[in-house]
Amino acid sequence: MTSPAFDISSLHAFYASGGGVAAVIEAVFARIAEVGDPGIFLHLADKESLLEQATALKAFDPAAKPLWGIPFAVKDNIDVAGIPTTAACPDYTYMPDTDATVVRLLKEAGALVIGKTNLDQFATGLVGVRTPYPVPRNAIDAELVPGGSSSGSAVATAQGIVSFALGTDTAGSGRIPAGLNNIVGMKPSLGALSTSGVIPACRTLDCVSIFALTVEDAWRVFMVAARHDAADAYSKAVSTDGFGRTPSALTIGVPAKAERLFFGDAVMEAAYDDALRMLAELGHRLVEVPFGDFYRVAELLYEGAWVAERYAAVKDFFDANEASFHPVTRKIYGGAKQLSAADAFKGLYALQDLKQKVAPLIASVDLLCVPTAPKHYTRADLEAEPIRENSRLGTYTNFVNLLDLCGIAVPTGTRSDGRPASITLLAPSGRDGLTASLALDIHGSSGLTLGATGWLQPEAKDTISVDEAGLIDIAVVGAHLSGMPLNPQLLALGSRFVRNARTTDCYRLYALSGQIPAKPGLLRVEQATGGQIDVEIWQMTPAAFGQFVAAIPSPLGIGTLFLSDGTSAKGFLVEAAAIADATDITHYGGWRSYVAATT
Amino acid sequence: MTSPAFDISSLHAFYASGGGVAAVIEAVFARIAEVGDPGIFLHLADKESLLEQATALKAFDPAAKPLWGIPFAVKDNIDVAGIPTTAACPDYTYMPDTDATVVRLLKEAGALVIGKTNLDQFATGLVGVRTPYPVPRNAIDAELVPGGSSSGSAVATAQGIVSFALGTDTAGSGRIPAGLNNIVGMKPSLGALSTSGVIPACRTLDCVSIFALTVEDAWRVFMVAARHDAADAYSKAVSTDGFGRTPSALTIGVPAKAERLFFGDAVMEAAYDDALRMLAELGHRLVEVPFGDFYRVAELLYEGAWVAERYAAVKDFFDANEASFHPVTRKIYGGAKQLSAADAFKGLYALQDLKQKVAPLIASVDLLCVPTAPKHYTRADLEAEPIRENSRLGTYTNFVNLLDLCGIAVPTGTRSDGRPASITLLAPSGRDGLTASLALDIHGSSGLTLGATGWLQPEAKDTISVDEAGLIDIAVVGAHLSGMPLNPQLLALGSRFVRNARTTDCYRLYALSGQIPAKPGLLRVEQATGGQIDVEIWQMTPAAFGQFVAAIPSPLGIGTLFLSDGTSAKGFLVEAAAIADATDITHYGGWRSYVAATT
Repeated sequence: MTSPAFDISSLHAFYASGGGVAAVIEAVFARIAEVGDPGIFLHLADKESLLEQATALKAFDPAAKPLWGIPFAVKDNIDVAGIPTTAACPDYTYMPDTDATVVRLLKEAGALVIGKTNLDQFATGLVGVRTPYPVPRNAIDAELVPGGSSSGSAVATAQGIVSFALGTDTAGSGRIPAGLNNIVGMKPSLGALSTSGVIPACRTLDCVSIFALTVEDAWRVFMVAARHDAADAYSKAVSTDGFGRTPSALTIGVPAKAERLFFGDAVMEAAYDDALRMLAELGHRLVEVPFGDFYRVAELLYEGAWVAERYAAVKDFFDANEASFHPVTRKIYGGAKQLSAADAFKGLYALQDLKQKVAPLIASVDLLCVPTAPKHYTRADLEAEPIRENSRLGTYTNFVNLLDLCGIAVPTGTRSDGRPASITLLAPSGRDGLTASLALDIHGSSGLTLGATGWLQPEAKDTISVDEAGLIDIAVVGAHLSGMPLNPQLLALGSRFVRNARTTDCYRLYALSGQIPAKPGLLRVEQATGGQIDVEIWQMTPAAFGQFVAAIPSPLGIGTLFLSDGTSAKGFLVEAAAIADATDITHYGGWRSYVAATT
Repeated sequence: MTSPAFDISSLHAFYASGGGVAAVIEAVFARIAEVGDPGIFLHLADKESLLEQATALKAFDPAAKPLWGIPFAVKDNIDVAGIPTTAACPDYTYMPDTDATVVRLLKEAGALVIGKTNLDQFATGLVGVRTPYPVPRNAIDAELVPGGSSSGSAVATAQGIVSFALGTDTAGSGRIPAGLNNIVGMKPSLGALSTSGVIPACRTLDCVSIFALTVEDAWRVFMVAARHDAADAYSKAVSTDGFGRTPSALTIGVPAKAERLFFGDAVMEAAYDDALRMLAELGHRLVEVPFGDFYRVAELLYEGAWVAERYAAVKDFFDANEASFHPVTRKIYGGAKQLSAADAFKGLYALQDLKQKVAPLIASVDLLCVPTAPKHYTRADLEAEPIRENSRLGTYTNFVNLLDLCGIAVPTGTRSDGRPASITLLAPSGRDGLTASLALDIHGSSGLTLGATGWLQPEAKDTISVDEAGLIDIAVVGAHLSGMPLNPQLLALGSRFVRNARTTDCYRLYALSGQIPAKPGLLRVEQATGGQIDVEIWQMTPAAFGQFVAAIPSPLGIGTLFLSDGTSAKGFLVEAAAIADATDITHYGGWRSYVAATT
């Protein structure tokens, strides 16, 4: 291939140096032909249409469109306007006329839908073989199952056909196929990504998930896609903060050694031990956590209430078209028909009991680290035991959404038999940034190439605000901006301007009352209730920074600002108590715009 | 009666001045005889046993036992060891050998169980007439239903037989009977009071509730009973802070005028208007809120999923003993037998949809104020329409637990026809202190006597820290205590000692490192993860206080301390960031004990 690697940094570098989207689209189709796997895509976008979309993007502008020109694939239980949705059940097929909310957001950010991908029918399964279409080939080892239910999305990413792909994850469908294909699988906190326009499996547990070649790419997609959506009753505003620098010496819970399950896969066990050693070498503290109650939660997912929920999602279609279902899927759904409302509540109570039991275990650690899967299963294994082996694959995934944890599966190395090794990091809802930050370190430490492509990991972006020379980045917001009244303070301290930047949309900007000179205050608020605010990044020595901070008058102070490019820096914040008399000027997008408009 | 009024302040004043518990127990039984209502109690405690318990209490000590010598009643779906539990279904009767968690906590705080009270069978109903036992008489007007399902508990409280009583509240059983009997009905946040030892109605919605003669008494009981309980899967740690001073100018949501429902009871409508006028006169801002979606949530409670949950709670007993049920209850439960698991999830999804719709309405106000009931129904009304009128009674209550709101029903006056007027204040989970504080103001403003007793409201306890002379209370924790190195600072500022006090158990105390003189730091933590800490309350002028605060060095500061007697005061707090190197000395119970033990 003459095209660049498809991780987002490499593609954006290609575009920044004059490369065109048309060349990338050609490369996508060339790659599809080269891979030659008829099981990956159920429908492909029309190349002409993609070239038109590319033209409509106009000039490369990653600040306005953070996914400008990035090709992606969509699991075929998620609607893309104008492409049929099948859920891998041909008789169920319909033609959506609007995009699912997440697809719309990604398109608006400049990303291009390449096609719809194969899956375990109705997203029920962790194997990828429960489809009436050809089974996608595992990208690393064709003997292995591709993993599911998001099989096609994972393989398309691992084969370097797309930069990232959307999956869904109810039991583990966003993590298991990542672990089987040497890629990153991010399963965000429940509700973070809207499920509006997604065919439900279990509505109370469903997540849209992200497959990517790198952790940084998964995070970029998450930043775009995580938005509260009133059209989805289970949508929630979830923090997109905290990605970048990993806190030192995290306390990481791991299943108690005696309780770890590998079902005879000693190579997987060794790979997990290696991964734990890597975490210890990164400076973190591992503590063993009793895991029996986590396994008990996992078992609930295919016993009773939540199988009934899957059945409820397609009840009318199932009752009228049982024969249209994959035999294994039909057996699972059929078993739920006779369950009563009392059975459903029995399941909910059993879960609540277990939630109370595991809550102190979860609270005792910063996050959990489990094997992504206990064992690598082959297609032959699944033919012999289609339900039992599927269930075992979910040993370390099935409890996660029931407990409202977020998770990310990340490659840790290559097993001694050449198959991929992967762990999954888990944490309570809202800590997506923490799990992703640690995953970034792990993937970096692994030194692995990306998916099945042989592409090298892009050079790690420095998300740490102290650079090699010991200089400190500080984001200034108001009177210290270039040309503003207090800017001479920065110059007098020997500071130098680095770049213009913008905050994430978690901030509101206020014109404070009674300040001479006039000053704004930046206040962190809940995600999507604020706006992106222009800032300038300046750099100064630690000593200058110390003097500078000491001189800052109340109600202003220095904290950590999160920036739209995924980095963070020290910067000005105002105390919440001080904004009662202040004027909200967020809609100006920055102090400079406000000053220009009002003077 | 020669005994004192039974509100807790009056009883404790009686005990403090040498009165004995035996006299109060005699008064309880005399009062039962005087009221002569065979429908209130299903079982009474043995008088001899009560006198023995009284002796076991030893000397009056309300600091150690905040409910010392206080008689209370328990709804007969809540276990009291050694007294049968019937749920008002004689064939269901069993003899518990342990107390429900809440009963145990109240007994440990010195309260005395007088008896078990009548209810709508299995707590299903808002009327109080669905019982095979005699129907309790409404304490104010015998033509009216007593209200249910906690009928006997409400009437026992209103008649002044007990100081308070426990009810349960799933649809409104802790509020409706309060509104019908001129008493306070506090329905805490879901999970605040353990339901361990309580017969479930809807486990996902059940609350133990508190009937009391005054708001302050309800709060005292709440402070004792609200404890996380690992034995109850739905138990939560809920804040017991914030009772006392009502924030000024609250924004209070009221149902949009055109959508208010009174089912023809114009007197109730006028009484509600009067109550809203009272709130405006108290300085609060009323805003009309569209109420259609709240009504839609209310309707869900008796349609489908949650009726199935009631049935699920007693499934085996119901299936074997249908004939043992009250005819109306049988009809309701029987309707749930055929519901499927898919129906249950359909109900859960409908609720989640509505939750998303009302969330911004709830977030737009500090709290909501609704009529407790839309209409006063008579026993004759219920005989004519046993299900429809019951359902209408729940117009303003049925949505509350489904939306995870806390609530308190409080008397607002006497209607023009002599019947009681009542409103209910509602707020998101955890704001029990806010709703109770406003209820305290409302009840005080009403000037009403208590229940049906003619007792006057006790003089309002001053919970405001600025007294008439403008002096400010400050709670000192460490080096400023009497006789300690920094106490001269207080004396030099003309401060005077007021009293010893103790914090609530929401604090941890640390010995800070590197402080000269040695100083502790008090840090607020989650409820029940701290201890009660000894403090001294001193009083000083605002000017002295200003100087004092200005001189306090980092990491200490001044905030609001919550005290075990339900009041609060300004006091010393430490910044959380400063305790990393500090020593946790909470178990000493105070700085003076720590210093004595370590020097």
